[in-house]
Parts: sequence; C-alpha cells; structure tokens
Amino acid sequence: MVAIDANGSPRKWGSRRHYDFSHLGYRRESARITEILARRYGSHSAVEAWQVDNEYGCHDTTLSYSNDALIGFRNWLAQKYQSPDALNRAWGNVFWSMEVSDFNEIELPNLTVTEPNPSRVIDFRRYASDQVVAFNKIQTDILRRYSPGRDLIHNFMGKFLEFDHFDVCKDLDIASWDSYPLGNLERFGRDDAWKNWYLRAGDPDFQAFHHDLYRGCGRGRMWVMEQQPGPVNWAPWNPAPHPGMVRLWSHEAFAHGAEVVSYFRWRQAPFAQEQFHAALNLLDGSADVAYDEASQVAAELLALPLAETTQSPVALVFDYPSQWATQTQPQGEDYDGFELTLAWYSELRKAGQNVDIVSSADDFDGYQLVVVPHLVMLDDAFVQRVSNSSARFVFGARSGSRTINHAIPENLAPGPLQKLINIRVLRTESLRPGSAVPVESHGAMQRWSETIDAGDNVTVHLSNLDGMPAYLSQERTSYLAGWPDENLLRHVIQHQLETAGLEWMETGDDLRIRDRGNLRTIVNYAPDTRDASHLIADSDEILLGSAMLDIAGVTVLLRA
Amino acid sequence: MVAIDANGSPRKWGSRRHYDFSHLGYRRESARITEILARRYGSHSAVEAWQVDNEYGCHDTTLSYSNDALIGFRNWLAQKYQSPDALNRAWGNVFWSMEVSDFNEIELPNLTVTEPNPSRVIDFRRYASDQVVAFNKIQTDILRRYSPGRDLIHNFMGKFLEFDHFDVCKDLDIASWDSYPLGNLERFGRDDAWKNWYLRAGDPDFQAFHHDLYRGCGRGRMWVMEQQPGPVNWAPWNPAPHPGMVRLWSHEAFAHGAEVVSYFRWRQAPFAQEQFHAALNLLDGSADVAYDEASQVAAELLALPLAETTQSPVALVFDYPSQWATQTQPQGEDYDGFELTLAWYSELRKAGQNVDIVSSADDFDGYQLVVVPHLVMLDDAFVQRVSNSSARFVFGARSGSRTINHAIPENLAPGPLQKLINIRVLRTESLRPGSAVPVESHGAMQRWSETIDAGDNVTVHLSNLDGMPAYLSQERTSYLAGWPDENLLRHVIQHQLETAGLEWMETGDDLRIRDRGNLRTIVNYAPDTRDASHLIADSDEILLGSAMLDIAGVTVLLRA
Amino acid sequence: MVAIDANGSPRKWGSRRHYDFSHLGYRRESARITEILARRYGSHSAVEAWQVDNEYGCHDTTLSYSNDALIGFRNWLAQKYQSPDALNRAWGNVFWSMEVSDFNEIELPNLTVTEPNPSRVIDFRRYASDQVVAFNKIQTDILRRYSPGRDLIHNFMGKFLEFDHFDVCKDLDIASWDSYPLGNLERFGRDDAWKNWYLRAGDPDFQAFHHDLYRGCGRGRMWVMEQQPGPVNWAPWNPAPHPGMVRLWSHEAFAHGAEVVSYFRWRQAPFAQEQFHAALNLLDGSADVAYDEASQVAAELLALPLAETTQSPVALVFDYPSQWATQTQPQGEDYDGFELTLAWYSELRKAGQNVDIVSSADDFDGYQLVVVPHLVMLDDAFVQRVSNSSARFVFGARSGSRTINHAIPENLAPGPLQKLINIRVLRTESLRPGSAVPVESHGAMQRWSETIDAGDNVTVHLSNLDGMPAYLSQERTSYLAGWPDENLLRHVIQHQLETAGLEWMETGDDLRIRDRGNLRTIVNYAPDTRDASHLIADSDEILLGSAMLDIAGVTVLLRA
Repeated sequence: MVAIDANGSPRKWGSRRHYDFSHLGYRRESARITEILARRYGSHSAVEAWQVDNEYGCHDTTLSYSNDALIGFRNWLAQKYQSPDALNRAWGNVFWSMEVSDFNEIELPNLTVTEPNPSRVIDFRRYASDQVVAFNKIQTDILRRYSPGRDLIHNFMGKFLEFDHFDVCKDLDIASWDSYPLGNLERFGRDDAWKNWYLRAGDPDFQAFHHDLYRGCGRGRMWVMEQQPGPVNWAPWNPAPHPGMVRLWSHEAFAHGAEVVSYFRWRQAPFAQEQFHAALNLLDGSADVAYDEASQVAAELLALPLAETTQSPVALVFDYPSQWATQTQPQGEDYDGFELTLAWYSELRKAGQNVDIVSSADDFDGYQLVVVPHLVMLDDAFVQRVSNSSARFVFGARSGSRTINHAIPENLAPGPLQKLINIRVLRTESLRPGSAVPVESHGAMQRWSETIDAGDNVTVHLSNLDGMPAYLSQERTSYLAGWPDENLLRHVIQHQLETAGLEWMETGDDLRIRDRGNLRTIVNYAPDTRDASHLIADSDEILLGSAMLDIAGVTVLLRA
Repeated sequence: MVAIDANGSPRKWGSRRHYDFSHLGYRRESARITEILARRYGSHSAVEAWQVDNEYGCHDTTLSYSNDALIGFRNWLAQKYQSPDALNRAWGNVFWSMEVSDFNEIELPNLTVTEPNPSRVIDFRRYASDQVVAFNKIQTDILRRYSPGRDLIHNFMGKFLEFDHFDVCKDLDIASWDSYPLGNLERFGRDDAWKNWYLRAGDPDFQAFHHDLYRGCGRGRMWVMEQQPGPVNWAPWNPAPHPGMVRLWSHEAFAHGAEVVSYFRWRQAPFAQEQFHAALNLLDGSADVAYDEASQVAAELLALPLAETTQSPVALVFDYPSQWATQTQPQGEDYDGFELTLAWYSELRKAGQNVDIVSSADDFDGYQLVVVPHLVMLDDAFVQRVSNSSARFVFGARSGSRTINHAIPENLAPGPLQKLINIRVLRTESLRPGSAVPVESHGAMQRWSETIDAGDNVTVHLSNLDGMPAYLSQERTSYLAGWPDENLLRHVIQHQLETAGLEWMETGDDLRIRDRGNLRTIVNYAPDTRDASHLIADSDEILLGSAMLDIAGVTVLLRA
Repeated sequence: MVAIDANGSPRKWGSRRHYDFSHLGYRRESARITEILARRYGSHSAVEAWQVDNEYGCHDTTLSYSNDALIGFRNWLAQKYQSPDALNRAWGNVFWSMEVSDFNEIELPNLTVTEPNPSRVIDFRRYASDQVVAFNKIQTDILRRYSPGRDLIHNFMGKFLEFDHFDVCKDLDIASWDSYPLGNLERFGRDDAWKNWYLRAGDPDFQAFHHDLYRGCGRGRMWVMEQQPGPVNWAPWNPAPHPGMVRLWSHEAFAHGAEVVSYFRWRQAPFAQEQFHAALNLLDGSADVAYDEASQVAAELLALPLAETTQSPVALVFDYPSQWATQTQPQGEDYDGFELTLAWYSELRKAGQNVDIVSSADDFDGYQLVVVPHLVMLDDAFVQRVSNSSARFVFGARSGSRTINHAIPENLAPGPLQKLINIRVLRTESLRPGSAVPVESHGAMQRWSETIDAGDNVTVHLSNLDGMPAYLSQERTSYLAGWPDENLLRHVIQHQLETAGLEWMETGDDLRIRDRGNLRTIVNYAPDTRDASHLIADSDEILLGSAMLDIAGVTVLLRA
C-alpha cells in the first residue's frame, strides 16, 4: 500500500501518509475505519463538523508510481478515450513513434529517457487528482450517511497545486486551510531581500490569496483550520513572528470571510517530529505568546459588529490544470504560474480591491472585472461563458495557448479566445534573468514575451520598444502579451480598473485593506510603523486601532 | 533492451532512444529494419544520401550500466588485454587491492563506494564509444550494399563528447551537425553576462568551432543538418534570435565549408514534446521568420561566385579520449577540457585566423602552426608525427601528462613530449575561482598552474611572479604551463602567429571573419552595429553587405 | 557484504571500503585475517605499533541500510529497551500513530515519506557508532593477544562526526589523525573570501582543533598519521601549500602534543585513484618539496629541548551525539554544531589560550574554565560532574535542550542545567542569512536566538535590543542564548577568561600560539609577513625563528 516515488523506490513506513491514493485495499480499510467512527460518533450532539483526513497530498503524496497507480491510470485512460487510436490522436503519439495499440502498453511517465509526451503527463496529473477526489468522496459519503447535518471540511495547504481543489470541494461543505505565513514565506517567497523584509510577518498577499481562493473553493464558506502560532519546524529557517502578528493574521482571516480561525496546536509536544513547532501553550501547559493574542482577537471580535462577506466586483480566475501545463512544459525555467497569478493578485490588492477567486467553470455573474493571469488550457464552453457575462476580462500571456489535450490550437494561441479578441500569437520566447523586452513608458516584459499578430478591431494600448503589440483590447477583452514586471502590471491593473469603472487606490507596499460588509480592515505587514490616513475617509469610523499602525497593527473601520 | 542509468534504474519506455548500444538483440532488429528500408529505397533515383540514426548519444544514451553492457565490457577487455595480469598491470590494480584473477570479476564503474580506478573508467568510455561505432557500422554496411553511390551522413551535436566522432566518421561520407546557437549558449555559455550579451546571437565561436571540427571529422565534407530557425524548446530559457540571425548563421556555415544548410524543421508540430520548437513554417503552414531568411540566403548564395574551402595554415588538435581523462580526474572542479579548447580557438579566431580542427592521429602536413590545447594522453607515435612535420606546435597544460592507460609517465609529464621540449612537470595545482598565479606583464594562470623543471636548450618566454617558468619553447615546440586567462592566451597566440610567420589581426570581440577560397565572410555577433573597416583592404571588393554591419550583419568580400 | 546506501542501492565493488560494519560474515573474515597477521608478525622486534584499519567511516561508510543493519538495529533496540512499550514511550511513538508492538516492526530510517522520528534516527546513529566500536574491538582484542606491549592506533579524519571517537578510542592506545589542511579548508572552510585568503595555509584553527580533540580522545597520546605533503587529489580544488607550510604544520602538531608526525606518502603512485596526490618523493624517487621540509623539521626538533604537554587551564567539551542531534533536527538550515564549536575554539585560540578538548563524560578536574558550545543532550550525571568540579562553565545555545532520548525536557531547556542556572528557554528561532538579533553594544545573534525566562539569582550581562536576556550567569555557570557573531563571541570569551582569572591576549587573526611545557610555538597562517613582537615577553628566549614571521613562519620561544 505504500507509494512508489519517481525513482521507483518504495516510500517506506516510519513517518506518516504512507499510502497510495490508487491502492484499492487502502481505500477499503479506510472506509471501514471511517464507517466505525461515523456510526459511533456521527449523531453525537457535540459533533458539529468533520475534518476529513489531513492536508491531502502533503509530502508529495498525490503522485505515486506504483503498480496500483499504473493499473488505475490505464483503466482511467480506457474509460476516457475508449480506443487506443483515440488516445493516439489526442496525445499526438505519432510524434517519436509513440503510438500504442493497447492501453496496457502505456507506462507511467517516470524514469523515461527524456521528457515524456506532455499530454501523457497532463492526463496522469488529472488521473492523480481524480484519485484524491475519489478517496475523499468515500469518506464523505459515509459521513453524510451516518452524521447528517454536520459540515464536512478538509484542511488544504498553501501553494499546493497537485490536485484540483475545486473538484475535491464539491463533496465538502467548507474549505479550510492551514496558514503558515512565515514557513510559506521562507519556502515560496520571492528573493532574499523580500524574505528578510517580511521575515516576521510573511508575504503580505499570500494569506489573503489563499483565504480568497479557498472561500471560492468552499462556495463562500472558509475556515483557517491551522493558524501558525509561533516558529514552526519545517521551513529551512523558522523565525518567530512579530509580537502581535498572530493577532493580525487572525483579523485578516476574518476580514476575508473566515468563519473560524483555529490554531495549530493547543500545546507543544515534547517528542517526535514536531518538537520545534510552537503552540498556544508551552509543553508544561502555561500560555505561550499566541494564547494571549488569540484571546485578544476573541475579545475584539465580540466588540465589533457582525458583517457578512459580499461578492466582490473583481474576480480572479485560478485554474489547477493550467498549473500542471506550465509545470510540464515551462519553456522558461522560472515560469511559475502560481507566482505570476499571485503577482496579479498583489497588484489588485495594492490597488485596494477586494477580490473573489473563482474557477474557470464559473459563470462570472455579477463581476465588473475578471482577471485571468494564467489560463493555459481552455475550451469553447469557457469562451461562451465569458461572452454571456457582462464583465470586462483581461488575459495574461499563454492564455488559451493549449487545447484541453495540451496541443497548440490549430488557429494558434489564444485559440478559442480569438472569438473575443482577434489576435494570433506567432511566436513566444522565454527570457533568462537579466534579459527583458522593454515596453514603451511602462516597464518591461520579463521571463516571457510574445509576438502578436493583431487583426481588425483590436486596439494596441502599449507596444514593445521594437514596435510589437504588448497590451491589446477588443471590446470587453484585453490581452497582455508577456510576463509583466511590477511597473507594467501596475499600469495594466490601473487601466483595467478605470475602464471597468472601479476606484483605484494606492495602499502602499506594506498596508492592505479588505472589506467584510461595511467593515474595512487595514493591516500593516511592514517591520515598521505605517500611516494609513490616506486609506481612511472622513466618514469612516475607527472601531479598532488608529490611523497610525504599529508593527503588526490592525485597524478596523466602519464605513459610512 | 532499455538502457540502465548510473543509479541502476531502467530508462523506461515513453519518449525516444530507449535502447542500449550494447544490446545485441537491438542491433539485430535494427539491422533487419535497415535492410528492409535499404532494399526498398536504396536504388531510388531520388535518394541522394542517407542520414543514419539521429543524434547518437542524445539524452545521455552513450553510457549504459546494463547487464549487456557488463558482458560486452568484459569481452572487450579480454580481447584488449588477453590476460587478467596484463589488465592488472595496465590499470595499476595493485592500488587498493583491486587485482582481478578473471575478467568476470570486473564490474561496471557505477555505484562504487568512492571513485573507481580512472583507468577502468577510461576503458569503459572507450568501450562505450566503440559500441556507437559498431552500431553505426552495421547500418552503413547494409546501406553501402543496397544503396551504392549515396552519401552516408550522421547528424552530430554541439559540445558532445561521449564518443569519438573521428572513429564514427570513418564509416561515413559526410559529417553533419545540428546547430542550435541559442540553446547551446544557454547550456554551455560562460557566465550570465556573456549569456545576456549574446542572448539572441549565440556564442560567436561555438558554431564556427563545430563547423571546423565536423569538417575535420568528415575529411572535408560537412553539412548543417539542423539549423536553429527560432526559439527552441529544450534549453533552460529559449529566446528568439535577432531578426536576420538565421541568415547570419547560414552564411557563416557556408563560409566554413558547409555543403548544405538544412533547417529543423519544415513546420511546427502542434503536439507532443517539441511543441515550442520553431520551424520554417508555422503549424498552419504559413511562413515563419526563418522561411524568409532562408530564402534570402538562397538568393544571395546564387549571386555570389563559387569558392572552394582550402586547407588553413593553422590547425587545432581535438582529442576525445583526453576529454574523458579530465572528466574522470578533473582535479579542479572547473577544469573543462572543451571550454579550454574553445578559448584557444576563440583567440585564434579573434586574431583573424582560419582554423582546421584535426585529430591527434593527423600527420599535420601543410600546416604552419598546430595548436594543441588539451591532449592529455599521447604516445610515441604522436611525437613521431610531430617530429616529421614542419609545423610549429604549442601545447597547453596537462599535455602528455598521462599514458594511454591513464598513468603518469615514468619520466613525468609531458611524457614522450620531452623528446621535443626538455621540461618536466614537477607539480600541478588546481586553483579555485578568485585565486590565480600571476604571470609577468601578461595576465595570469587561473584554474590550473604547473611547476616546471626546464632543462637545457629550453627558452623561458614568460615566468610566473614567483619566478617559475610559465611559457617555454624549444625549437618548434612550445608549452604553456597552466590555464591562461584571456590576456595571457592572447599574448601566446600572438607570439605563436608571429613566430610562425602568420599575420595577426584584431577582429574585435564581436566580429569574426572566415575565408572560403577568395571569399571572405565577416559576421557581426554583437547586439549592436559594428564597423568592420579595419578588416577590409582597399583591394577587397564588397560583394554583399557593407563595412558597417548592423545587428546580425553579414558582409562578403572578394579578396584580390 | 557490501553496504546499501540511503536510496537502497548496493555500494558496488570497485574502489575500497566495500563492506558493511553490521555484516557478521565480514567481521569473521576480518578477524581471521587479523589473527593470521598478528600471529605472524605480532612479536617481531621491528613492530612498535599497529594501525588498525584506515580512516573508519571514510566515504560515508558508517551508515548502511542493509538487511544486516536492519537485523542488527532491531537486536540492539531490543537489548536497550527490553519491551516495545518502553521503546514507544522513549521515542514518543504515539505521535503520528507510530507505536510498534514488536521490535521486528521497526524499519531503518531511510526512504520514509517525510522525516522519521528523530529519536529513531538518534538511536540508529548510536547503533551505527557502536558497530564501529565493535568492529574495532575485534581487531584490537586479537592484536593485544598476539602482539602484547605494542601500541594500537587508528587514524581518524578531520571534521568526521559519524561515530563517537571517544568510544572507539577506549580500545586504542593512541589516537592519530590524517591532517590535510588545504583539502579540509576547501571542503569545510567558511566562505570564498576565507578560502582564498588561507588558500595555501589552511584554516588557522582546524588543525589545532583536531590535534587537541584527538589528544583528548587518546587520553593524552596523539599522532599525525598522515600529514599533507603538497596538493592532494580529493578536494574540489587542490592548490599547493606555501613553501614552508609543511614544516609549519609539523611544528604545530608537535606543539599540540603529537608524538609522531608521519607524511602521506613516501612516493607518488603513477597509477589508480590517487595519481594527483603529492608525496615526500616524486614517482621517480627524487625528493619533492615536502621531503626537504620534513628533514628540516627533524633537524630543528633535535636542536630544541624536550618538553612535555601539560594540562591546559581551559577545556572545551566536544560531544558526538549532540552533533547527530542537530544534524537530525537542525531547525535552521545552517546550524552546524561543529562549525559553532570551532568558532568558540577559534576565539579561545585568538585569545592566546591552550585548550584541552574533552568528552562530556570528563570529570573536569583541574580546569579553571570549561567551554561547552554545543552539548544538546545531557543528563543529571553530567550536571553532577559539573557541580563537583571547581571550574567555571559557559554553555552555548541549545545546551540541555534535549533529553538523552531526544525529547524536550519537561521543565523546558536547558533541562537538568536549571539546577546550575535558573533559566527557562521559552522559545527558539532560527535566522536566515541576512537576518540577525542585535545585542546591546556587542554584535548580534545570527542563525539562532532564544527567548529566556531568567529566574532569581541570575545576572543578565547582555540583553538583545528588544530587552530579552542574551548572556547570563549564575555563580560559576553562564549561558549564551544564541549563535554569536564574531564580535559577541569575542566579548563572551574575554569576559569568561577575565572572570576565571586567566590572561587574555590578542594574537591577531593569522598568528597562533601553543605551549608545550615551557616551549611556546608561534605560527603564521597569513599569506604575508606578520609581526609577533606583542606575543614575546622580554624574558622569553627565541630558540627558532624571529619576532617577524614570514609566510609559513615558525618561531619557538623558551619561556622563563
């Protein structure tokens, strides 16, 4: 039942998560245990909700290269394609003579001489994601049967892209996540200067992004299941948060719609793997820093009026399969679809916007502006939904550059989007650090630049210095033909907001605002005090904090 | 039949080249298919030439650690050494008690506790190279039988050192190669500043070096089988060439004696691994940039007079086994024999020289100067050929420092070369980045420095600042006792050219010239215009271009 | 009998040390051969001493993941814990549901999904160390039987931490080591600037540290078995020592109590793995540089008076299991316990101190100051020995932070040390490069900082800029609550020496002094001359050298 890693080695017993999502025996035993638990406790009055499993996919456990995975993958392909010929055509197996005549000829895409066909990899990623969905559904089906009326929850992680969280969440009532701002900064932060500046605060947009993402996955319902309470044990370096920072993170989570913020963990454990992980209480049971900060938040929340999260005017589309596409064929070593998406999100946040994060399957009703930084694989149905909505859309580079099977569209990128904006991507290039394609007056493309053939009815807002179109629109649809630096991205966001009739604010680099109903929360991520006067209107009433925010400062306004 | 990697894992089905050169069953099946093809098409009037296989060794497939390789290696050793005792003596197996009493006791040199005996590694490299030769010969024997009169060609790669290309070429009529200037710059270029400067042009000497190398391997006959037409898909970053750069590369190839320049590929494929690889045509069949540039080259070639490539006055010796020697025992982490050789070649080119690249088995007839940057293993027969020739020879560090069996010569390095220059290398040292051994007035040794005992009749041209000889000569033979920086190497080349009675020019860093008969081609690799007036004599007639070269500029002169 | 690496691959035949310490068959055969040798030569009059094996553990051979190791580990655990329940409690196996009901359920701690329980790892490290001890004892038992009266020696290595050398030395008469100053600088040196400055001299404290460490392991008896004679073959880069440096290293070894300095090797071998390793003689038998320097040392020693090594007033505790503890849970990526210990040692040496390095099992009799930079796991018995001694003790961060089973002490760190100094470590944090916690007036904590709750009777000498205690004392015991930068560490050492009534000197960065009886040796590690006048009293008689030391200079004083 253990997983097999990409090198073909068993992932041995002796830590945790030593199971393979494809192993049917494990699924059976897991269902058996779940059923015993659900029968015993399901109708107990103290049970309000169930957390199903813990951090699906943690420790790289989504993908396994076991024989069970092989058999499962072949069956999955047989059901999807029905015939080897259909699969051959979908993947383009004629290339490098890779045609199969039987589904049993297909191997898992590891240990190949050179890279395998990307269509094969994408399908394997989809298969693996589907196994997480299936495994989760086994538990939730049992729990719904024996524990009706209780919310079913799973706790997801930060920057975790191995399976499609929108799919898993269809069988859950609430999406929760485990928010470790400092560990995640150390793991996923930009450069060393960035990591040192936000050392004790975390990336100022990372938490907000995931609050919004999982609120989207949870169809409006989101918890923080594990809030970092102090130094953790698992990042390369594990500093302590600023005093007050646990309070800030908690307030920020509530501002983004969290129903619950729970802290991992109650008391530090003296033994085993997580000895260095802080808690609300020290191991002798006395209160640690986070205990007091959590208590303070509880008291402050009680003093504030209630307010409901409402739909934002701006949506951002997040798509898991597109992440797999650029992981499989990045074409430039530093093309990280998540990082690009977070950069767009960050500019929206610095412009003072509340953002909903939605799936590409959304119908986009009620939005004024939809930002689509990284939707590589899309189809006609998506384009139809875009057409049906009344929002403006701005697309990032590589949008629609691949079909659902991960081939280049016959009409060239952006494929079906050409119905909305009459352009063809003739050429793409990836750019190494230190090289760039400057754009007139507004920064440059880094990492990625495209050569666009713009057709009739297309307006070119900005061109590269060599005269090629860089940023274009047709009616409600815009396209940015590269990976923008901060300067360029800021300009694009400002232009889009103005065109959509939305207010553009300037929070500054370290302050962020977020509205929950008529409550506006301002937080300070700087390792220094910050003046937020420019973010407070005369008509606003300060309910908590003040216009001058200390380190880890939180200010809550009641908006008129 | 799949290869086994150095970790002992099978290199699984699912991309390409999943075969082991040592596998006799694969050889049989391959011969069977070749024979069917050759019988069917061999005498067809449209068949002018055959490309045998594709990029031998690509994806690290020269070396395999399979059981077939083990059996093959043991047999190869038994044939070479005839007795275990002879092998024990040749390898020095007494060291670390490694004597064998039977050839079957010998294992492949992977997964050893620490490094294996370098003599064992070198023999394994020779064995592996011989398997490529043998595999190729099976195909060429069949093709010669069924397709007489057709040229047999293979397409080699850039900086590919895993087998001896001179050996493989003995069974071919023409050596071709696949020239990807931008991909190769990204993979093999010097430092980041260098890669950014030549981002859209490629290293100004890398292409020329391989043209000259493969023209040497092909005994004068060379093609470019695959010319990069735009961004490729396989380097860490894949930028687009400057407009006009495909034209420049094509002209440069012809200037170096190419009979054909062919472009990979006709049309971009929408699916599978190479989706991002540009072509002459877009996937919808419309012309991409390279189509127009290739057409322009064709027209320009028609307008130019014909001219034959003639022997150059300067030869450079390139030796594959010496590359294996310094890969096996680099002694300094950055001792890259190829990089050193390319540095010598580059200084010759910047000095305006046409260069032939020859094997160490050459007889050196007709050359005035022979440059030998990196010939580690040599024997008495080589020294005899040097003696018989009338050229000047300049040797780089480590020359003759190992016998053919990879032992230190009894009389110390440079071993048999002591017959030509009376010096002994008493000590060698490798130098980390940031350390150097300065040489009086002319730069420094970096990476490598030797302590020389100079005997009678030896002239010391330059000494290190500590007074030890750095650059010495005796009659027609010179020796440079370290890895020179650019300043020192330039001085040595200038001195050698003057002594050999050859003209020294200064092209500048970004311009290069190359003669084909009385046609002189000047190319500009700079991302900027360059003035080439100093390279044009009053008596030269400009047939193409002008004295001022734009980015990607090409100028062709008819020399009086 | 071959070892299995952490990836599960066999470490194949073909270099050396292809054996597994856990393999009982190998032990038997090894004993058989040793007995034959010992019977044959044990009582020969020319045999003065035996070197048992060579560099135990070299090439990462202490740890093996073979089936023999698995069986041995299970037996070792069964003997140690007697019952699975006892083991479950000791390791805290309740965490992540890791309880075992049978010792045969325990696996080796490799290839786990994520990190294994650190208590399991620590026990595996102890088990592996014990196998080296057992293997060594098999040989020494035989040799003592057949070769009575001869000294038994092993040659250890530099910065080698894989087994407990104090344990192995219990069965030996003399501890020797193989001193390669330049190879070790390249491998273990600080940063590039440091490596370039000491390129041809080595780290100025690395050799001295190991002389003192192994003199401690050998209960006062220490040899240098292999002294580097010139460039070696095994570091990333292998420069030559300064002329005179081999002489300096030899004198320094004798100053630190070496009975013998032997050079590896007599003559360079022309073949096999170590071709590039220099020797006393070139391969043709003529003298190389080191031959002359060794001869000079021999003559100089004869001219100097004899002097015995005496106990130093300062001891430094070195503990192997504590190294394993921070390797297993470093918590900060750059927390290298050895590097930290060497930094403390270096400040003592720059302050002119002679230092003894002792085990944590020492009784500390006769010392005025005991420095304990890195004793993570300690018990009540240790605290009792400290209490019984009359020395001052200064402890570094993480001291006593783990029980012997690698759990956090119930009373928090520093655990049993709280009997000596009334503090509790409430929180620890690791700090990435570029971040630091400044200490008032005296540098900063880097890499590691602790939050201290100081109880009654504790004096705070220094606080962090945020007011938290950084450096504290209670009676004879001091504690430094972080990883000090050079500035802070220097201050602490100075303060401790003054408080202990010891003289503080300032040798300067590149000079070091060491006393053997009334002989004081001064050495110069700078690549430049250095004036040592400040280290020479009017009453000192210069027996060798002078007050002005050239590169590699050695000066010996007779102290009044």
